[in-house]
Amino acid sequence: MSMRTQRISEGILYTDFYQLTMAQLYFHSKIHIKRAQFEYFFRHYPDYGSHKAGFCVNAGLYPFIKWMKSARFDEEAIGLLRAHKGLCGKRLFGDAFLKWLGREDFLSSVSVRAVAEGRIVHAGTPIAVVEGPLAEVQILESSLLNHLNYQTLIATKAARVKEACYRQPVLEFGLRRAQSRGANAGARAALIGGADFTSNTGVSYALGYPPKGTHAHSMVQAFIALGQSEIDAFRAYAELYPDNCILLVDTIDTLESGIPNAIKVFRELRKRGHEPAGIRLDSGDLAYLAVVAAKMLDEAGFPDAKIVLSNKLNEIVIWQIISQIKKEASKYGVDTDSLITRLLYGVGTALITSEGSSALDGVYKITALKDGGKWQPAFKISESAEKTINPCRKRLWRIYDRRKKAVADLLALYEEEVSGEEDILLRHPTRSAMKRVLKAGEIGYIEPMLEDIVRDGRSVYDFPSIDEIRRVRNRDLNALDDGVKRIIEPHRYHVSLSQRLWEVKQGLLNSFGKRDMD
Amino acid sequence: MSMRTQRISEGILYTDFYQLTMAQLYFHSKIHIKRAQFEYFFRHYPDYGSHKAGFCVNAGLYPFIKWMKSARFDEEAIGLLRAHKGLCGKRLFGDAFLKWLGREDFLSSVSVRAVAEGRIVHAGTPIAVVEGPLAEVQILESSLLNHLNYQTLIATKAARVKEACYRQPVLEFGLRRAQSRGANAGARAALIGGADFTSNTGVSYALGYPPKGTHAHSMVQAFIALGQSEIDAFRAYAELYPDNCILLVDTIDTLESGIPNAIKVFRELRKRGHEPAGIRLDSGDLAYLAVVAAKMLDEAGFPDAKIVLSNKLNEIVIWQIISQIKKEASKYGVDTDSLITRLLYGVGTALITSEGSSALDGVYKITALKDGGKWQPAFKISESAEKTINPCRKRLWRIYDRRKKAVADLLALYEEEVSGEEDILLRHPTRSAMKRVLKAGEIGYIEPMLEDIVRDGRSVYDFPSIDEIRRVRNRDLNALDDGVKRIIEPHRYHVSLSQRLWEVKQGLLNSFGKRDMD
Repeated sequence: MSMRTQRISEGILYTDFYQLTMAQLYFHSKIHIKRAQFEYFFRHYPDYGSHKAGFCVNAGLYPFIKWMKSARFDEEAIGLLRAHKGLCGKRLFGDAFLKWLGREDFLSSVSVRAVAEGRIVHAGTPIAVVEGPLAEVQILESSLLNHLNYQTLIATKAARVKEACYRQPVLEFGLRRAQSRGANAGARAALIGGADFTSNTGVSYALGYPPKGTHAHSMVQAFIALGQSEIDAFRAYAELYPDNCILLVDTIDTLESGIPNAIKVFRELRKRGHEPAGIRLDSGDLAYLAVVAAKMLDEAGFPDAKIVLSNKLNEIVIWQIISQIKKEASKYGVDTDSLITRLLYGVGTALITSEGSSALDGVYKITALKDGGKWQPAFKISESAEKTINPCRKRLWRIYDRRKKAVADLLALYEEEVSGEEDILLRHPTRSAMKRVLKAGEIGYIEPMLEDIVRDGRSVYDFPSIDEIRRVRNRDLNALDDGVKRIIEPHRYHVSLSQRLWEVKQGLLNSFGKRDMD
Repeated sequence: MSMRTQRISEGILYTDFYQLTMAQLYFHSKIHIKRAQFEYFFRHYPDYGSHKAGFCVNAGLYPFIKWMKSARFDEEAIGLLRAHKGLCGKRLFGDAFLKWLGREDFLSSVSVRAVAEGRIVHAGTPIAVVEGPLAEVQILESSLLNHLNYQTLIATKAARVKEACYRQPVLEFGLRRAQSRGANAGARAALIGGADFTSNTGVSYALGYPPKGTHAHSMVQAFIALGQSEIDAFRAYAELYPDNCILLVDTIDTLESGIPNAIKVFRELRKRGHEPAGIRLDSGDLAYLAVVAAKMLDEAGFPDAKIVLSNKLNEIVIWQIISQIKKEASKYGVDTDSLITRLLYGVGTALITSEGSSALDGVYKITALKDGGKWQPAFKISESAEKTINPCRKRLWRIYDRRKKAVADLLALYEEEVSGEEDILLRHPTRSAMKRVLKAGEIGYIEPMLEDIVRDGRSVYDFPSIDEIRRVRNRDLNALDDGVKRIIEPHRYHVSLSQRLWEVKQGLLNSFGKRDMD
């Protein structure tokens, strides 16, 4: 991609065209600088078909804010808009509007509150809240959704994989099946959500993680085509990487050729004073082969050699492999726990594309507009109660019980005081009949979830490192009930409205002529 | 993303780490400059679950070649590799190898033959062939797969959508659900495959297409929050965009509020001498609403106003909508054909993520290696006959019948002469018993499919414009039998081996101890 193409296609014009035509409409109607608040939330957890998520891992905030801080209507972008002709051949964007877009202080009064990356987040809760001049925050929509939807989707998938494999090391292998440069965002999100390493070299270095990998079948094939054999390829590899030697054993025949040859080379390696790192299995019945490989390696005196599994893995396949290992290992005299803790997992397509659920349905909706010095709720009724938005400027609270487990997320009005000192009435977001009281005595503590990220255009937040984000993710996962973490048919986590917010919403529904939310 | 991050993560290190460790192994084994040939092909057409593809539309070549031409091991990349420590804390890459990587003439003897973008391509055929020093062509693998797999996947989906909607205008709306920057590659591929426009503004301008869009619900909501109403929003929009006025009519109630208000505004517009462009329907029963909307617009005197449909569309949904319209339109006195030709389709998630089949399974396999001045076939047996590669340097031919319909793709040895002058024996790639003879009299013409793109590091190909690529796509689609284009259970297009190639493959199978390909 040329520098010009990259500038144009990744800068401020990285947006849907209608954001610009709407922005001009607001400008024309003189409501462009009215302060508006938009909320980012997703409606459904990823549903992969045979399995689905009960939580998401928040990601993408840092890349979005980075984009926002540098995206400006420079002369090039303005020039492109100025040259844009509508259907009748007339210019679509007027000079006054373009001048307003191109001014120095564009976005300088925009504020962002958001949930930190790595945190567990739930359907129907505000995860990012953008406040600023209506026309400006409208333009931010597409890029915000683009960054947050995808990275949250992938961090979530990675967390599921990591949980399914008993938190053994997970390697992200998806570069070749990603949406072009999306591979880099996907690798970052995977590292946040649960992957320990990625094979994607550039992004690894950029993020300060060492890239990882083994070797491909083509290496063995190249040696064979040159009249040599699998063991020659293995020997050459072991000689060059004596302390990092993981051999891919399925190019010819895993049990008859690959593992026996690997063991021979491992013995030679040990004689030279090096311990082999392990083997990789990339085809066949991975559970069965892992058991037999473990037995062969054990008997040959390499009980510490790791076994990397790859080939169309996802959390369900991994779960099934581990279940099968639990059944079969003892039949071969292999210790189940030792085997499970020597496994590593290379996950490609299923992780980088979130196979089965290829997009998070996150949306960015206007919830309030300031008029005459007062915030007015913005509202949209929908045929389905679920799609009817929760209006007003809000705060998001997470309520923990005395076991320190998260029991509910509570949406409340911005100005509402919420504390664990008193009983809390939790209202169902859409069903009036459903409410429950959380007794003060049952509440461990209450945590505000939205943090100030940008205030009036200035960063007021120290973005944490990937390592810190991972710690946050693990802490939040540990505070989540196992039922919510189930990889199939998870228990539904509670998201509730405060009584006051519920009353405002009900009032708006009434004013639109809907008797009830149901 | 900072400039440094972008350089590192999108340059030559945009590759899987094992390519680099393998490259060093080849260097160490002194086989790095042996000429090797790798082929890119996919094994399966996209299968979306309830429907699947019988062809693909080739895309991604130009972006890959652009990447390749600028990707080099500069000092920064070399520095990162030099600093890389293995498990025991020792450097993983030696100075001699790094010097070889960093030399001026890196990739200067690599050649690429490939099928042109926009062409229909089939499973199991070589679509790109890379030849050059073993270590260099190995390193190219990840980026090549990353570019070609995704863009081909999306161009294919776009072609299916375009065919399903009777080639009416298709708008690509997927930026918010794409894999981060993958949105730009996806928009390009969609334009190649079947989309007429994209809402993605930057990439539209970069490619020289006008971006398109309408407006969002938030515009109407903003007016309502400020004490005004839907019609006020419509009026403001129509006043600003009198010649480009498409109104989104479902913010409140499509039939009760949206369409009647749009018609009022359209009448006002016409009084001022402008014709409305149309309306957009984004929720509800789109088929039913399209019929009723058409009737209302017709009766109001706006038979030329377009109707844009959006909301979770894919080729099956579009096909169902059109089927329903064919059943229902006449009941409302609406002319079916007129309605179908006034529809436009905005397609988001399903297109940009190829929902249901989120990755093309394209691979890059070594098929030949030059040794002692002679090309040796590289081969890999697999448990499944389908995964056993077709060895040797090859050419790909497309055979057309006398109706100018493509009847088969033929893989033959590079040095083989293939012409339509004689009968051609077609062998099934994996099943020995399956063969058939194509009589010379039945053959219309034969076309070589692989073109020289890069020869010894130099471009020898004029990359066509997107418009030209689209013409190629349409020409190839017209030459494809309708059965192969069916959106559900398409007829299988024939891909065959020449007798000579089949004999070489059979000989290699025998030498590996497999009696037959089956």
